[in-house]
Amino acid sequence: MTAVPAFAAPAAGVPLERTTIERRPVGENDVLIEIKYVGICHTDIHHVRDDWGRGGFPLVPGHEIAGVVAEVGPGVTGYQVGDRVGVGCMVDSCRKCENCRNGLEVYCTGGGLVATYADTMRYTDGAPTQGGYSTHIVVDERFVLGIPEGLPLEQAAPLLCAGITTYSPLRHWNAGPGKKVAVIGLGGLGHLGVKFAHALGAEVTVLSQSLRKKDDGLRLGADHYYATSDPKTFEELAGTFDLILNTVSASLDGDAFLSLLRIDGTMVYLGIPEKPVSANVGSLMMGRKSIASSGIGGIPETQEMLDFAAANGIGADVEVISADEIEQAYDRVLRSDVRYRFVIDNSTI
Amino acid sequence: MTAVPAFAAPAAGVPLERTTIERRPVGENDVLIEIKYVGICHTDIHHVRDDWGRGGFPLVPGHEIAGVVAEVGPGVTGYQVGDRVGVGCMVDSCRKCENCRNGLEVYCTGGGLVATYADTMRYTDGAPTQGGYSTHIVVDERFVLGIPEGLPLEQAAPLLCAGITTYSPLRHWNAGPGKKVAVIGLGGLGHLGVKFAHALGAEVTVLSQSLRKKDDGLRLGADHYYATSDPKTFEELAGTFDLILNTVSASLDGDAFLSLLRIDGTMVYLGIPEKPVSANVGSLMMGRKSIASSGIGGIPETQEMLDFAAANGIGADVEVISADEIEQAYDRVLRSDVRYRFVIDNSTI
Repeated sequence: MTAVPAFAAPAAGVPLERTTIERRPVGENDVLIEIKYVGICHTDIHHVRDDWGRGGFPLVPGHEIAGVVAEVGPGVTGYQVGDRVGVGCMVDSCRKCENCRNGLEVYCTGGGLVATYADTMRYTDGAPTQGGYSTHIVVDERFVLGIPEGLPLEQAAPLLCAGITTYSPLRHWNAGPGKKVAVIGLGGLGHLGVKFAHALGAEVTVLSQSLRKKDDGLRLGADHYYATSDPKTFEELAGTFDLILNTVSASLDGDAFLSLLRIDGTMVYLGIPEKPVSANVGSLMMGRKSIASSGIGGIPETQEMLDFAAANGIGADVEVISADEIEQAYDRVLRSDVRYRFVIDNSTI
Repeated sequence: MTAVPAFAAPAAGVPLERTTIERRPVGENDVLIEIKYVGICHTDIHHVRDDWGRGGFPLVPGHEIAGVVAEVGPGVTGYQVGDRVGVGCMVDSCRKCENCRNGLEVYCTGGGLVATYADTMRYTDGAPTQGGYSTHIVVDERFVLGIPEGLPLEQAAPLLCAGITTYSPLRHWNAGPGKKVAVIGLGGLGHLGVKFAHALGAEVTVLSQSLRKKDDGLRLGADHYYATSDPKTFEELAGTFDLILNTVSASLDGDAFLSLLRIDGTMVYLGIPEKPVSANVGSLMMGRKSIASSGIGGIPETQEMLDFAAANGIGADVEVISADEIEQAYDRVLRSDVRYRFVIDNSTI
């Protein structure tokens, strides 16, 4: 066991503070990563506040991890010391179920994925998992991703959660040339959804509450930008989209957004609203439409996403902060005052 | 104009009575059909009671029509006098929009389909449409289906609505060998859903409130039959199905049924419940699942369905009644006391 510096929430709702945590010894198939940057995901704030009652305190958040390999176990074949690597929302899964065997570990049915923090290594030693707000992490190489040269690490970090969460549904529901894709919300997820959808060749529309970020949206790759506060938007765009990615977790009028889909269109919820989603069956029936959701993405698809991002010059738009600024950053995330992701410089931890 | 005998509801909620209605002269592309049988669909009862406030009284229901061609217009190329034919839920559409051009008239976006009854011929003369509880109907050949030899007309009639309503989603969501399909409810739609899913090669499970109709379900082609009133059903079948066809319009616990889907599974609502459908996003996210709905089916697919039915010996299980028994039949439909579709012998009208 090795003690490493970290920022942890000692209890629910208490500000994060500097501390040390133990990382397990580097095992046969393990990679020790020196973390360079970690993204701040809204999920981190939910966990620190224990909004979902998952506990796990003291809790080190962070599942958008980018760094460099510092040591590898004797059985590691895919990585060497010095490699640029990342870790996302999961660090283990059962590895035996059909989904795990198919590289869809996020949908593991053999006991579920092991989250990067606020979880336990239930398939091995049962130890609690602690996230990327720390200087180092030890992860089995199966759950380590390679970050291609040319993709700056601070821009890569948010791809490990926000990036794959938008890339995976775009790929699954066939966003590409000839397809019209709408992205609801231009935040951490949304801005990457726009970049990926555009790079995949789709015609991209941002649906935001206001036109406040319109210039940004167009710069990021959107072809069109509409305010959902304007009722005319729903008239003008009726029957338009093949795919809508809903990146906001506020409750929406499901029927109104379904009316924007064309035949066989799908509305994918990527945020988790407090209330269940609902819609009239008639809104789905008239056009054979679907409501769906997807999780992050499996490990192979996450690697594909990183390679695609590097090949297309896509990274997250980030504001790099020091670890002492985490609380202010959290406040700004809650006010949606970030363009578009805070990333902690882990040398300040 | 030709006066023909019919059964009509003179006003909302009033019992149907014998009357005569006018049918338009046989036009250039029209087919005059002598109706032999017409199925009783639950929708007929909703319209007669004006549950949806659509009006249209006096109203002749009936959109599961099977008969024989009695006369054709000079421009008709597909049918001759004496041909066995059917008409389903629509008798016209805009014919110009992308969906109409693609044979998906049910999803017409150029003004919508014209329903076989309780609608108006809005693309032509604006006349009200009247359904199949009558001896004859005049329909443009584009909306006429051929009923193959070997498929008895009384068994074919319910295929024009209940049949295509289940066949279309089974085809769209790829029911076939290696796929596990569940059918919720063993009624008019459900019993045909079981027959089609089985004939398409899927492994079929009926999910019914009780085991009352289990023997029937297995006879119709189901491989398994479970009672949804038994909580053990939901434990035992968790993560099982690729596709669930929900043929009941009662409100269900969406999350409970979504838990029965395996990865990428879809739950398709074919009945229209009074309340919106709802589900927690987490129930969709954990397995990339979808909630969807579909309408009947386009004209080309309806013909495909009839050909598939004939080739596989599939017809509806029917109870043939005389027109004077319509009221009793309606009462029994409302009590779910029919195996599995009432069909009126139109020679008794």
